[in-house]
Amino acid sequence: MDKTDAGRFFEDFRLDEIISHATPRTITAGDQALYTALYGSRFAVQSSDEFARAIGYPQAPVDDLLVFHIVFGKTVPDISLNAIANLGYADCRFLMPVYPGDTLTTRSDIIGLKENSNGRTGTVYVRSTGFNQRGDMVLSFVRWVMLRKLDEQAKAPESRVPKLPPSVAADVLGSACPVIRTAGWDSGLSGSRYRFGDYWPGERIDHVDGMTVEEAEHMLATRLYQNTARVHFNAMSETASRFGRRLAYGGHAMSLARALSFNGLANAFHIAAINGGRHVAPLFAGGTVFAWSEIVEKADLPGRSDVGALRIRTRASRDLSSTDYPTQDASADTPGIILDLDYWVLMPR
Amino acid sequence: MDKTDAGRFFEDFRLDEIISHATPRTITAGDQALYTALYGSRFAVQSSDEFARAIGYPQAPVDDLLVFHIVFGKTVPDISLNAIANLGYADCRFLMPVYPGDTLTTRSDIIGLKENSNGRTGTVYVRSTGFNQRGDMVLSFVRWVMLRKLDEQAKAPESRVPKLPPSVAADVLGSACPVIRTAGWDSGLSGSRYRFGDYWPGERIDHVDGMTVEEAEHMLATRLYQNTARVHFNAMSETASRFGRRLAYGGHAMSLARALSFNGLANAFHIAAINGGRHVAPLFAGGTVFAWSEIVEKADLPGRSDVGALRIRTRASRDLSSTDYPTQDASADTPGIILDLDYWVLMPR
Amino acid sequence: MDKTDAGRFFEDFRLDEIISHATPRTITAGDQALYTALYGSRFAVQSSDEFARAIGYPQAPVDDLLVFHIVFGKTVPDISLNAIANLGYADCRFLMPVYPGDTLTTRSDIIGLKENSNGRTGTVYVRSTGFNQRGDMVLSFVRWVMLRKLDEQAKAPESRVPKLPPSVAADVLGSACPVIRTAGWDSGLSGSRYRFGDYWPGERIDHVDGMTVEEAEHMLATRLYQNTARVHFNAMSETASRFGRRLAYGGHAMSLARALSFNGLANAFHIAAINGGRHVAPLFAGGTVFAWSEIVEKADLPGRSDVGALRIRTRASRDLSSTDYPTQDASADTPGIILDLDYWVLMPR
Repeated sequence: MDKTDAGRFFEDFRLDEIISHATPRTITAGDQALYTALYGSRFAVQSSDEFARAIGYPQAPVDDLLVFHIVFGKTVPDISLNAIANLGYADCRFLMPVYPGDTLTTRSDIIGLKENSNGRTGTVYVRSTGFNQRGDMVLSFVRWVMLRKLDEQAKAPESRVPKLPPSVAADVLGSACPVIRTAGWDSGLSGSRYRFGDYWPGERIDHVDGMTVEEAEHMLATRLYQNTARVHFNAMSETASRFGRRLAYGGHAMSLARALSFNGLANAFHIAAINGGRHVAPLFAGGTVFAWSEIVEKADLPGRSDVGALRIRTRASRDLSSTDYPTQDASADTPGIILDLDYWVLMPR
Repeated sequence: MDKTDAGRFFEDFRLDEIISHATPRTITAGDQALYTALYGSRFAVQSSDEFARAIGYPQAPVDDLLVFHIVFGKTVPDISLNAIANLGYADCRFLMPVYPGDTLTTRSDIIGLKENSNGRTGTVYVRSTGFNQRGDMVLSFVRWVMLRKLDEQAKAPESRVPKLPPSVAADVLGSACPVIRTAGWDSGLSGSRYRFGDYWPGERIDHVDGMTVEEAEHMLATRLYQNTARVHFNAMSETASRFGRRLAYGGHAMSLARALSFNGLANAFHIAAINGGRHVAPLFAGGTVFAWSEIVEKADLPGRSDVGALRIRTRASRDLSSTDYPTQDASADTPGIILDLDYWVLMPR
Repeated sequence: MDKTDAGRFFEDFRLDEIISHATPRTITAGDQALYTALYGSRFAVQSSDEFARAIGYPQAPVDDLLVFHIVFGKTVPDISLNAIANLGYADCRFLMPVYPGDTLTTRSDIIGLKENSNGRTGTVYVRSTGFNQRGDMVLSFVRWVMLRKLDEQAKAPESRVPKLPPSVAADVLGSACPVIRTAGWDSGLSGSRYRFGDYWPGERIDHVDGMTVEEAEHMLATRLYQNTARVHFNAMSETASRFGRRLAYGGHAMSLARALSFNGLANAFHIAAINGGRHVAPLFAGGTVFAWSEIVEKADLPGRSDVGALRIRTRASRDLSSTDYPTQDASADTPGIILDLDYWVLMPR
């Protein structure tokens, strides 16, 4: 009876298995303050109870990506502790606002398995769903990870690759956003006069600023999310790894890119969905993160005249300014793109 | 229509212009906890609801300099993003206590402009005022910054240099401090038996301790304040700068000096005003900050027998112990004074 | 009249002297969030109000070691600022749960003094007790520290070495733990199905994971605890010290070991007492901390069928994986054990 949990390997997963994850987490104003300190996010709705109330929220909601990271973090010990790679995200929908005082738990459903032809690794497709203390779903997303087998003789499971939508349909967006009183939206306070109508598909925005990452920062963040993936914390073992050093949690780059995107997208107050995302290259301490965005698509929300949805592709780069909208991926030693994120934001009309 | 805000240049300011800054901010116990973790401040009034109530506050107020940094931070994107130098502060008055749950906004008035004779730069004088959610002024201060012109052909504006008081008059101090029940002041808990009557003009106090600054710390602090000045965050661009590295936000040195000053000034529970301040040399990560103070003046507050005001000049040094009350400025590579701050504190009688 | 406190030396202590320490501290959700970010602790009771309520707490209590560090921190300026070494802990009992909003103060009693035969140093035995705002004792512990004499001619005090229990008796454990509704204990959420009955004396548990420490992290932690010991903060003076660099606060290693111990001891939800503890070697930034535990003893709690007590010895190592349950001490340059902690935890039956 070994009480230490070494994490699961590919052969430990069963199709349609349901996993309830530890540890439940009450989100507080302390978590939100740390989030602000880690990324410098300036979106008015999440920063000010007064601003939030003026437009129809009962108080300032917790930052969307903080919710994502906390829901995600719980899945790590059971899903991806032994992951070789996080291959991608799909169909990530924010379903309900989260406020300080809410308690989040996460459940995962194993929706797909596929052993690789080498017989040594396989891909696990997981839908993870975060719930609040009333049992409401607050967030649901699919990710797929490559895991190795501990026992290479273990029989390959029945293969199933789930059909995933290339993007979240616009008509299901917005359930985590109350109806906004757009007359209460103060453009001086929000930081921009540009609203939904001012953006067009194909528009590119250089978010200009660069933010250098320190080891203490990405570790503080990842522990705040109770994410236990070893590659982020253990400099001793990572010295012997492929990259020779600790990797920052991929979500750290997502939050940095989102915070940088304020400069150009200040009124994009809510991430309604993430259509897909890839961590195309690693982020290390010492790296400086930049970001640029392209407006991919615009959509109305059925029955809502308060907000519209912008589909945005944001690329974050490492050690490469976004002035020229770079697209090439970074490698361990070369500057370039580290994150490619396709998501829907809501903007006031 | 470029949606990215590149910040203003000298020619973008108009005399008597009023600027409402983004982002409103609800200050929480999380912000105060981070402030404690960043500086190790030990003043009892801000640390303990019980202590604060025992002397007449409804609860522990937020640290004065945390209020300053948050009000200041909002002005950066509109005022000083392209600043060559922050030249000084004057007439900074704390007007109302701030408690967790209060929401702060900042407005700035352009009270002076003066183009330099080189035709390429100019000085902007700004009065910035922080308001709470009830519209009460909580803090007001003047600063002046040197900015370059983007268009060197732009016509020089009408010149006006505001007349600034060399110090805040003692008779306007104290509005952010409720009447203190001095009988409720527990000297064991506050950390010192020395009250207002125990200090005299000319007295010098070596605050003894040194605190080394890390990159992660000053960046966490500056993001907490939603201050976006690039020089603090972008190691890549700063490598090419005059100093070859990131600079810590000047306010970080102010808060370190204030926290260090507890040893010798433990009962100086409230900063009532800042008469003037200069960041006379840069602070970099790796530097160790020391501080020493001189009591400049003592003043009664009209109609108040509970507290008196000490005017203090605190110097912070970098990599130079304060044992000998050093006065020479630091340069980029040489230890010395980095901050020279002239301010009023209140002390119980 | 020197207003700067230089800390006490051996000859400044008197037997049976009582010292009331500054600074009272209201613990908030912000402190708890920082604690999570610093260590990544995942115990469900401290992480979730809902989980805590389901088992009988009114809300999530503050992490036990956070309480310890805050109570301890207050003693540093008066007791150990000039300590040569923290020699040990004994008879540390957690007496009352602490919740966000509680205000802690600390009082110390000098229970023993013994000058060393060299005439230059001596050992001070101190019982420190933390109180909440109602005057309830929340924590009490003894520690002894070696201090040097400032005046070597000072007369040796009457010698008294207190008799300290080798361990806290099991029948006084549990007063900080309400009666637990074990039926409300959700093993999926808590992270382990192993309860009190599943552990046995002699059992060893490798906690597997390693956590590398950064300067910014241990300094943020130590300042959060308002602990002013210079060796943690002043890189300039510490360069000239025996170790040539800053030391992490010993309690930082305790909290890292406790957080790592979740993997194997997830249901050990409450530290009821610390029987003894030694920081057998220093922890520096850059070091990677591992931990392993041995179950020393099991005990029933008189009159309680909800929880049982496990006496655990946890060793933390530096730069040495715990796979082989190492026991040798680290030196400044060699990997090995840094912490040897003997404590009682409560587990649901």
